[in-house]
Amino acid sequence: MPYELYYWDGLQGRGEFVRLALEAAGADYVDVERTGGGRMMALMNSKTEPQIPFAPPFLKDGDLIIPQVANILMYLGPKLGLAPQDEGLRFVANGLQLTIADVVAEAHDTHHPLATTLYYEDQKDAAKQRAAGFIAHRIPKYLGYFERVLTQNPKGDKHAVGADLSYVDLSLFQLIEGLHYAFPRGVKPFAERYPALAALRTMVAERPAIAKYLKSDRRIAFNTSGIFRHYPELDQDGA
Amino acid sequence: MPYELYYWDGLQGRGEFVRLALEAAGADYVDVERTGGGRMMALMNSKTEPQIPFAPPFLKDGDLIIPQVANILMYLGPKLGLAPQDEGLRFVANGLQLTIADVVAEAHDTHHPLATTLYYEDQKDAAKQRAAGFIAHRIPKYLGYFERVLTQNPKGDKHAVGADLSYVDLSLFQLIEGLHYAFPRGVKPFAERYPALAALRTMVAERPAIAKYLKSDRRIAFNTSGIFRHYPELDQDGA
Repeated sequence: MPYELYYWDGLQGRGEFVRLALEAAGADYVDVERTGGGRMMALMNSKTEPQIPFAPPFLKDGDLIIPQVANILMYLGPKLGLAPQDEGLRFVANGLQLTIADVVAEAHDTHHPLATTLYYEDQKDAAKQRAAGFIAHRIPKYLGYFERVLTQNPKGDKHAVGADLSYVDLSLFQLIEGLHYAFPRGVKPFAERYPALAALRTMVAERPAIAKYLKSDRRIAFNTSGIFRHYPELDQDGA
Repeated sequence: MPYELYYWDGLQGRGEFVRLALEAAGADYVDVERTGGGRMMALMNSKTEPQIPFAPPFLKDGDLIIPQVANILMYLGPKLGLAPQDEGLRFVANGLQLTIADVVAEAHDTHHPLATTLYYEDQKDAAKQRAAGFIAHRIPKYLGYFERVLTQNPKGDKHAVGADLSYVDLSLFQLIEGLHYAFPRGVKPFAERYPALAALRTMVAERPAIAKYLKSDRRIAFNTSGIFRHYPELDQDGA
């Protein structure tokens, strides 16, 4: 039975971190809301379902419903051959994935610093302040950290955990892509300052399954409905 | 060898979710920065350590370093007898824990909506807006969700997952305590609107190991250095 991925249609958003893992592994999956759909809200609002998710994305594997990106990837990783064999390292991978989730949440808050219930246009001044700090302080702090993770990996700087590709590498790729879309000026010094991350980005993009996916119509383009949004007024030169 | 918990001294913060699990299980642990300490930053800044955490809290168990609250609890849960036996339900527990982490991050952003690098006093107006939305929309949405999780648990509404106490119950207790400290007006309708959560709160507080811990000097009082902060100007009546 194929995995069922539940996420909003029309945007990459948080669902994309899961899609990349499924695509890299060539897994059999259905992107429910993009292919018929309409069942996502029913599941979330169910009064009888014993495992109700708070928000998408969530994965359904048989009767099991698994919400939250890092949780989905921790569940799928070993099944897809995208997690370390060593059990301890699986927790290291999960820790990195949760740190990626933290940057992603901060990237979201650059355009919605005051409330998710308000339009961006109604919180633009606050967004400018939040984005300025994100570019000046948070992007360098997070990317500097992930660069160290790569260079201090005892198995080599090609991968975040262990000697092989894991879902963490795929998510780092997506994070880097998202930051480049949203803040092209903010990440201008990227390749120079973070050479190991830059090499990882290329390595992931060139993997045959990923290269094929990125060219397919299953890869939704970045847009201003997603987590990473390009609003020129929020971008500025990174240090 | 005792578990080593690394977290800032002087505040409950995110470390408290881990402390409650360790205390409930009577585990042998050292709260490193509260008992001598000084090693936390050295570990984080290490140029050689293969597993570097981005931020506290993190747990050290022998050579393994595990960052991120939900990750620490997923690791410790089975060892402390605070996780479901069923492997699928462990991912359900982790999904709930990550949703708790999301509320906690939003509670933090009520007092720091624009930047963590700015003082609260320098973002007070934005904080008022963010807190108003948090009280009006987000608290009811999250608590309503967790109330449903309890009432739709096929094993009964006393626990979040399965038939027994898990670390998720302990974290829900801490979330409820934190919200009551920070927003006493915002959660005034709590017991009436969320009876299952209210019963869970009492159940956890009355467990002998937790009751003893809460009275000990190991339980730091809530204060305005933590995640949950009581600033009267940010509080208002909840619906």
